[in-house]
Amino acid sequence: MSHTENFKAAFRNHPGGVAVLTADSGDGPVGLTATSVSSVSADPPMLMFSISGLSSTGPALLKAETVVVHLLGEQQVELAKTFATSGIDRFADQASWARLTTGEPYLVSAPTWLRGKVVNQMEAGGSTIVVIEILEVRLPEEGQDAQHGQRPLVYHNRTWHALGDSSALG
Amino acid sequence: MSHTENFKAAFRNHPGGVAVLTADSGDGPVGLTATSVSSVSADPPMLMFSISGLSSTGPALLKAETVVVHLLGEQQVELAKTFATSGIDRFADQASWARLTTGEPYLVSAPTWLRGKVVNQMEAGGSTIVVIEILEVRLPEEGQDAQHGQRPLVYHNRTWHALGDSSALG
Repeated sequence: MSHTENFKAAFRNHPGGVAVLTADSGDGPVGLTATSVSSVSADPPMLMFSISGLSSTGPALLKAETVVVHLLGEQQVELAKTFATSGIDRFADQASWARLTTGEPYLVSAPTWLRGKVVNQMEAGGSTIVVIEILEVRLPEEGQDAQHGQRPLVYHNRTWHALGDSSALG
Repeated sequence: MSHTENFKAAFRNHPGGVAVLTADSGDGPVGLTATSVSSVSADPPMLMFSISGLSSTGPALLKAETVVVHLLGEQQVELAKTFATSGIDRFADQASWARLTTGEPYLVSAPTWLRGKVVNQMEAGGSTIVVIEILEVRLPEEGQDAQHGQRPLVYHNRTWHALGDSSALG
């Protein structure tokens, strides 16, 4: 295998939590599924993600000043699939999304999301790493979160997983 | 809860694949467990991670020109714990590590690792985001990888998990 193919093989086996990013820089709602979202700093609260230059919706998302990051659980696996599918209108289901009072599109069935403003970007090999500072956090209501039945979603080797008691190590 | 506490609560519930980073900038081997490792670009192959300014070993790691990133499976959970523990000599077990011919310390029992050179860094809220370009990829031999029994390790809400058939969504 080539160097790039070996790299891809290594990362196919590296799991990631699943998020959907949404934004609107003035041309309508855009969104995509990302497995690169990670906390960077708690105080001030900041997170990072990367956007591939090959992504069809990447350029529109990178123009936005604010982004909503939804951290998904197993009950949002269909949203994760929708926002990872090319060539469809990801916002076709009008009941699936709405606008925050600040204007950004968001997914109404996602119990956890964070709204932030872009504070830094860095180019890396045709992709762009984005840092956002969090302005607003929405947490699950009781009965929705992991402690109350919502298992977090993980993507690994082209398969969706949910963490729970059966995946925990002793 | 405060804004920062809400942010922490959201990310406690966001799972991450588990990696151990090792390096030596001339003062001896250093290493730490990271859940922020993510692929950024496949061609050229690049990955990113973030290092907290609060990490005791962060500054030494950030001085290194090259880093080894081990992507861990369930059989490396003790390594993950060791490299996440403060106040110990993480390299005390001489049998657990060796030097690559290029000089970097690496963990001999980790079947997947990538060696790369630092190509960019970006400050973000007291942490540092690092991008490395991959120079060398080590993949599992047959019988070691996910398809042959090694289940990838995931960290979530202070618990270690392993992905497998029981966590896959149908």
